[in-house]
Amino acid sequence: MTTFNMRPIGFIHSPYTDTKQIPKGSGAKHEVEGVLEIEPEFESGLMDVEGFSHFYVIWVFHNRSDGYVDRVSPPTDDRPHGVFATRSPTRPNPIGLTVVELLGREGRKLRIKGLDMLDGTPVLDIKPYMSSLPPESLKLGWYAEAQARRDKK
Amino acid sequence: MTTFNMRPIGFIHSPYTDTKQIPKGSGAKHEVEGVLEIEPEFESGLMDVEGFSHFYVIWVFHNRSDGYVDRVSPPTDDRPHGVFATRSPTRPNPIGLTVVELLGREGRKLRIKGLDMLDGTPVLDIKPYMSSLPPESLKLGWYAEAQARRDKK
Repeated sequence: MTTFNMRPIGFIHSPYTDTKQIPKGSGAKHEVEGVLEIEPEFESGLMDVEGFSHFYVIWVFHNRSDGYVDRVSPPTDDRPHGVFATRSPTRPNPIGLTVVELLGREGRKLRIKGLDMLDGTPVLDIKPYMSSLPPESLKLGWYAEAQARRDKK
Repeated sequence: MTTFNMRPIGFIHSPYTDTKQIPKGSGAKHEVEGVLEIEPEFESGLMDVEGFSHFYVIWVFHNRSDGYVDRVSPPTDDRPHGVFATRSPTRPNPIGLTVVELLGREGRKLRIKGLDMLDGTPVLDIKPYMSSLPPESLKLGWYAEAQARRDKK
């Protein structure tokens, strides 16, 4: 089987040292600030990142994923769903995706806001956040249904 | 150095067989439809994906990336920028990220719209697209500046 070997381009400095500290589920606010420290060899690739307000961070659920589980019960619902319909860490590839705000850059240190990663999390890539889909065009499946059930209670 | 080994969860069936066919740059519309065929072992993880209208697809620039180049000139600008301020394939890890619309599901085949990948592209993960940032909150750096220069011409 073909596989792909990925290496960290940097690491997260986060106040979170335990997954229990990370707000989860519907309406969880991720306002926490931290630093993404890029490896020295990749610093020159950062030219002009400071012009963008938001980035996608693609990272690894490091020491946090228990391997692939096909169906999971998310914190926002009491019913199981396929892992690909959730953001659960128990994915075939333990890849996380977070949108962060870029507050500033000092050399190869990016100050970012909106963290939901643990301290020491390896980062595989960052990409500028260029456009949004209109919220009214989104269908949110089980997530919207679970929200509606909670609202009725 | 710690590295991470990733395996395909599926592959893209796309009408694009050459990168020259893929619309690039500012205002490029990605309206093309295709199929993401998930590997049989992961089919049960797809439960309930059909409730969501849009997904992030995390994929590999397969046979398409020439390795890491720290500064690149994107098709939308005549000036070079750091690769992390662009979506260029010449990243340390050849990871692509695309938002697609889910048109339908037949078993482990997901019909999707908005492709910008080549036929045969390996996919590492999909995640439901749950929320958008308000467009007025986005700063778009060199991209907005290049657009303004073009608009002046």
